Amino acid sequence: MRLRKKPWISEALLEYSDIVVTDGAVNLGQWLSRYGGKELHIEIGTGRGRFISGMAEQHPDKLFIGIEASQDVLYDAARKVRRKGLKNVQLLVFNAITIETLFALGEVDQLYLNFSDPWHKRRHAKRRLTHEGFLAKYQQILKPGGRLCFKTDNEKLFEFSLNQFAAFGLGLSNITFDLHNSDFEGNIMTEYEARFSAKGSKIFRCEARFGR
Amino acid sequence: MRLRKKPWISEALLEYSDIVVTDGAVNLGQWLSRYGGKELHIEIGTGRGRFISGMAEQHPDKLFIGIEASQDVLYDAARKVRRKGLKNVQLLVFNAITIETLFALGEVDQLYLNFSDPWHKRRHAKRRLTHEGFLAKYQQILKPGGRLCFKTDNEKLFEFSLNQFAAFGLGLSNITFDLHNSDFEGNIMTEYEARFSAKGSKIFRCEARFGR
Repeated sequence: MRLRKKPWISEALLEYSDIVVTDGAVNLGQWLSRYGGKELHIEIGTGRGRFISGMAEQHPDKLFIGIEASQDVLYDAARKVRRKGLKNVQLLVFNAITIETLFALGEVDQLYLNFSDPWHKRRHAKRRLTHEGFLAKYQQILKPGGRLCFKTDNEKLFEFSLNQFAAFGLGLSNITFDLHNSDFEGNIMTEYEARFSAKGSKIFRCEARFGR
Repeated sequence: MRLRKKPWISEALLEYSDIVVTDGAVNLGQWLSRYGGKELHIEIGTGRGRFISGMAEQHPDKLFIGIEASQDVLYDAARKVRRKGLKNVQLLVFNAITIETLFALGEVDQLYLNFSDPWHKRRHAKRRLTHEGFLAKYQQILKPGGRLCFKTDNEKLFEFSLNQFAAFGLGLSNITFDLHNSDFEGNIMTEYEARFSAKGSKIFRCEARFGR
């Protein structure tokens, strides 16, 4: 889905300077000391922010950073965070390809990937956010024992990702092929997840632990 | 499926003493020196023997031991091995619960579980052949780096098994959710697999490496 660029958004975002960080790199190594919180959790591909705002409500003691490549989409997330009055969320327009420039070594406690683009063509495999090239970046910014939590409704992407995680030597846990009919508690749905699971799509989920 | 006991089979099996081992425990630690072969591969739940006889044809330099709890079913496997003239297969009527009494520590190179009983009730989870209780037994008999190759058409059993393997610290690889449409080469089908995949059932498969 290509989103139509809305030219007025850059200006509208200026009103959200308490929520939207314009230059994330200046916070490298400083996120928790600047914004407070006991743990740093980040989501890559935050979209319209339903997941991250829900998580932030559920865990008021943790800091959540939402990263999203599309400014237009992130604007909706910023409005959601403002409306809910959340103080523990910061949002960034940023491309995950250089994610390691935003966080210091071992700065991140937990990383979420939700319904990432499956890039279904084999020649685009490197663009998948669970490709080993990205795992190497996540390993830098996650602390030893830090976890990647991944969910998707795309079976092929899930299969690919399990293989990438295992080959990278990550410790897998809580693997489910049907999240909404599993024992997993406290699931926060994304916009996409709510829409597609209502249509009967099954949601796959797993956790991968770095640096055993 | 409960199989009707055929009383004449015990006698009929006497004609297959070159193929069917009556007391497996006497070969403990001696399988390769007695029967020849460069590697020892075992299948638990051999059924009517299509898989193990196919593997033995494909790998004439390896010794294959097929273990099956039902004597009636194993009889068909024995006839198949005789008909194909295979010299590198031995079959046993045996219950996997005491599998560790058949093989010495680290004697086995590879172990196959194909379409094992899913024991779908939660309270029967311990009976599943991929339960951690069985994995502990497999770890005894497999050599370090030895592999368990597992396939099933039961999604719930596959999900359960991946979690058991990961929790046990096994190294996963070649995970596929649709074996017959994957890159995997040299697949030998079981009787059950041929029947159910013809009806459109997808076959799940993975490999789990012990003793990293």
